[in-house]
Amino acid sequence: MARVAFIGVGNMGGPMAINLVEAGHDVHAVDRDPASVALVSAAGGHAAGDVAVAVADAEAVFTMLPAGDQVREVYFGAGGVLERARPDALLVDCSTIDVATAREVASAATARGLDMLDAPVSGGVGGAVAATLTFMVGGTDAGLSRAQPLLERMGRTVVHTGGPGNGQAAKLCNNLILGISMIGVAEAFTLAHALGLDPQKLFDVSSTSSGQCWSLTTYCPVPGPVPSSPANRDYAPGFTAEMMLKDLKLAQTAAGVGGVATPLGAAAAVLYQLAVNGGLGKKDFSAIIKMLET
Amino acid sequence: MARVAFIGVGNMGGPMAINLVEAGHDVHAVDRDPASVALVSAAGGHAAGDVAVAVADAEAVFTMLPAGDQVREVYFGAGGVLERARPDALLVDCSTIDVATAREVASAATARGLDMLDAPVSGGVGGAVAATLTFMVGGTDAGLSRAQPLLERMGRTVVHTGGPGNGQAAKLCNNLILGISMIGVAEAFTLAHALGLDPQKLFDVSSTSSGQCWSLTTYCPVPGPVPSSPANRDYAPGFTAEMMLKDLKLAQTAAGVGGVATPLGAAAAVLYQLAVNGGLGKKDFSAIIKMLET
Amino acid sequence: MARVAFIGVGNMGGPMAINLVEAGHDVHAVDRDPASVALVSAAGGHAAGDVAVAVADAEAVFTMLPAGDQVREVYFGAGGVLERARPDALLVDCSTIDVATAREVASAATARGLDMLDAPVSGGVGGAVAATLTFMVGGTDAGLSRAQPLLERMGRTVVHTGGPGNGQAAKLCNNLILGISMIGVAEAFTLAHALGLDPQKLFDVSSTSSGQCWSLTTYCPVPGPVPSSPANRDYAPGFTAEMMLKDLKLAQTAAGVGGVATPLGAAAAVLYQLAVNGGLGKKDFSAIIKMLET
Amino acid sequence: MARVAFIGVGNMGGPMAINLVEAGHDVHAVDRDPASVALVSAAGGHAAGDVAVAVADAEAVFTMLPAGDQVREVYFGAGGVLERARPDALLVDCSTIDVATAREVASAATARGLDMLDAPVSGGVGGAVAATLTFMVGGTDAGLSRAQPLLERMGRTVVHTGGPGNGQAAKLCNNLILGISMIGVAEAFTLAHALGLDPQKLFDVSSTSSGQCWSLTTYCPVPGPVPSSPANRDYAPGFTAEMMLKDLKLAQTAAGVGGVATPLGAAAAVLYQLAVNGGLGKKDFSAIIKMLET
Repeated sequence: MARVAFIGVGNMGGPMAINLVEAGHDVHAVDRDPASVALVSAAGGHAAGDVAVAVADAEAVFTMLPAGDQVREVYFGAGGVLERARPDALLVDCSTIDVATAREVASAATARGLDMLDAPVSGGVGGAVAATLTFMVGGTDAGLSRAQPLLERMGRTVVHTGGPGNGQAAKLCNNLILGISMIGVAEAFTLAHALGLDPQKLFDVSSTSSGQCWSLTTYCPVPGPVPSSPANRDYAPGFTAEMMLKDLKLAQTAAGVGGVATPLGAAAAVLYQLAVNGGLGKKDFSAIIKMLET
Repeated sequence: MARVAFIGVGNMGGPMAINLVEAGHDVHAVDRDPASVALVSAAGGHAAGDVAVAVADAEAVFTMLPAGDQVREVYFGAGGVLERARPDALLVDCSTIDVATAREVASAATARGLDMLDAPVSGGVGGAVAATLTFMVGGTDAGLSRAQPLLERMGRTVVHTGGPGNGQAAKLCNNLILGISMIGVAEAFTLAHALGLDPQKLFDVSSTSSGQCWSLTTYCPVPGPVPSSPANRDYAPGFTAEMMLKDLKLAQTAAGVGGVATPLGAAAAVLYQLAVNGGLGKKDFSAIIKMLET
Repeated sequence: MARVAFIGVGNMGGPMAINLVEAGHDVHAVDRDPASVALVSAAGGHAAGDVAVAVADAEAVFTMLPAGDQVREVYFGAGGVLERARPDALLVDCSTIDVATAREVASAATARGLDMLDAPVSGGVGGAVAATLTFMVGGTDAGLSRAQPLLERMGRTVVHTGGPGNGQAAKLCNNLILGISMIGVAEAFTLAHALGLDPQKLFDVSSTSSGQCWSLTTYCPVPGPVPSSPANRDYAPGFTAEMMLKDLKLAQTAAGVGGVATPLGAAAAVLYQLAVNGGLGKKDFSAIIKMLET
Repeated sequence: MARVAFIGVGNMGGPMAINLVEAGHDVHAVDRDPASVALVSAAGGHAAGDVAVAVADAEAVFTMLPAGDQVREVYFGAGGVLERARPDALLVDCSTIDVATAREVASAATARGLDMLDAPVSGGVGGAVAATLTFMVGGTDAGLSRAQPLLERMGRTVVHTGGPGNGQAAKLCNNLILGISMIGVAEAFTLAHALGLDPQKLFDVSSTSSGQCWSLTTYCPVPGPVPSSPANRDYAPGFTAEMMLKDLKLAQTAAGVGGVATPLGAAAAVLYQLAVNGGLGKKDFSAIIKMLET
């Protein structure tokens, strides 16, 4: 069993860390919120006072943090991961952050001889608890081989998408499609309503033809056609609108750095911003349809 | 066997009419282009000199025309369908036109005691030839029952989506999703390229997760991941960019009349207009990715 | 003094007709709303029972109607303008309608030997009352010469913008710029607020530099910098958001017919639709800033 | 006369530095490109080997750099401005950079007891040479008083827009309006062309009414109406499309950080990205109309 540092044990990181504890690993948890750490301790983990303490002697260091700035701080700060990690430690950042930061941190780790993976997840809090997450992993084959036994305790699917940063790249490209297609589906139902077309009829047509997409057939934004979709429970998430906004902004940042145009991605980010500002941030992202309904 | 008038026997209507001929029906064809009519004649149909001649004595009148203006002319004009159709004739418009015109024509037909269906299709020229079209049908149950034996000779799937105009409504709502999701997928591949993410890796991730959509998994706009997609044959259509533009414009018109906002639909129509103006009109609509690549 | 038929004497047409009455003309008014006609009668005009009555013997026929469909009906209907106008009558449509209809009506008038102008206005109800409207006129020089003495009684500026339909074209192109620039200014103030930049400072910079525009310096959408702007009186119009939406939709229709892309125009129409659906329709169009504020 | 360090003496910074030399100041120039430094030397300035040398003993330190990353490096790097500046030096950053970096650098300067201004300019290379720039200045009144005599040698207008970062904020808010209104004007001319409306007629109407804006009346994107506009010289800049793209991206970044939506700003950034990728980057930004023309 491995000694593991887990930095960031909130809504997502907490259940992930506990899954490692339950698999028999020796998990040392850090978080700004003592209550979050206490949950891991209660499950059999250890509370580490700070990053330096957690990282010392850890064979693997996981981070699950809100944004690139926190990852930078935890990695580059005094007493941080790069300063204190064991020379043979495996570093795995599960945060969803911008590609540029992911690559900068990985590069700094490599410069110190450390193996680092970016491994953002999809599947939400439910997937974190149930250990059914999908990991999109950027980094070396060797690093992924070492991480695999741990990742498999926290998720069901592990996809190696390329070198450093490509886990992040894959996640934001996927979520770019997702955010756009959800709005597209929402627009279609809104237009159908205006035209007097029964939403079930639209679903029947599109779910079996060229309009088929996950946003329609798994996460349908109107109540009825897909009973398990958030629309049937007043848009309880699932994946919140503010999380979608975060990912669409990351995609816009990446497009800006890369010098490419993503016209619908830019428009989708604007709509989610309006939705979040209008109070829908904590609802499921399929609630974007409420922005369009009158 | 029925006597059938078929008005508009071009790329789509021609093979549809021939399929009826081959099923043993007595088909009288009209078109502005004599060569198109000649193809139907050669297959065993009859050339009718004009709409009035074709419609006289027809039990069923099919129209397959480019836009609402032509449908109006053929239906409302002197010697047109509404003036000359038998009192018990069944009228079926397979054109893709604006919902308002579809409803206006159906209403005028009903006022004359005629049963009328709007029955736009998907499946393209290939589907017309192979008799594998999908019909989205608006109108009465009784009308559809009468049409069913004929529609089944021209297509594989018939969906009854509601009253008059709802065939058109279903088609344009579906194609609204389609146009938007195709651009979304194209943006994701464009961004992936800028980020150094292998397109096959993006496909592997998204085809099995929340980015899955028909535009990705059936009609993938980059060569490679889906060997049968138009991208692998230099974007030979398939469904052309100019046809997608037409449908997106119809969706915008319907949204304008209905007083609803479809932000990504509006942006998608703009992009397809730019693509068509830039010379991509005859390419498959998945060639929209060329608008984004540098 | 001329005998004038005035068809459509509501908020705009009413004061325009009264200005002609007050200039000594013999005005015969028609409207669906008897109360509107009564106001013209009270000012010294005559109530005509219907279009046919009003038009008979009129030297000039003015129309001020909500949309192209009403203009068609009044011109093409039984007992309508084209059927009943004197062979030497001058026809002037002051409605703001789609260019295609304007040209179709003008063409039908010409075919009957009648001189017709499209002469949409800007200046709002205030300008109609004060006889300070601007007329953008499409039609022949000869027609405009005949109309000039009447137009000058209703407005201050008359611009001849070309042949039939070009009055409408000029108005909608102008209002396309206007709708877009107003949103641009609103976005700038919204961003300034988020950045902690005093709106007066932004006004000071942009009003004297490259951001200068009528939407900023005459109709500033935040209270303060321009005391006379609607923002200072809770966005009392002025020119309502729903009127702007109407004009932006006309621009989109014209762009669609013309096969050109107007990306920001499309996005502006979407925003005004959302604003109108959200309850801002009767506010001044500068209230669009409320869509952006959080 | 003051001893001045000038860091970044390229297209913009070069002529600015030379204007200070010609006013009698003792200017020490640094740039990665020796040829740029040589031009300042030839005008009577001094070549400093590096930032540390230039800054030592300077009463005022000017920077004119491409982006925030370079400003960070020059200020925060070893041997950089914050390390080497005299305790009483005045620091003035004339670069156009993101607001967050501007505030971070100003805050670090203040922490060291140094007075710092952000003072981005408008007016382009022509304005830099002719000393007719406009400075938008964020910082303290005291700092601005000290800078004023120097700024007046390089520009004609100095506007104090608030505390640290508000110079940048003012510039990007202004250019947000500018980028949007230019596209709006370009769309109007494109639509006018499709409708057969003479561009001069549109200009005549809009330049005197509610469509009036600097982009129309000073920088008209079609040849003819404004003889001095770049459109009349094949879109020679002026202000390049890639500079506009840079500023629109900064506005999008600021909006993202601030959590506000700028829908037309986002769409404008996309269009300029497409224009730059399509080869228009070095043309004047009014060449955006070429993206719309067919």
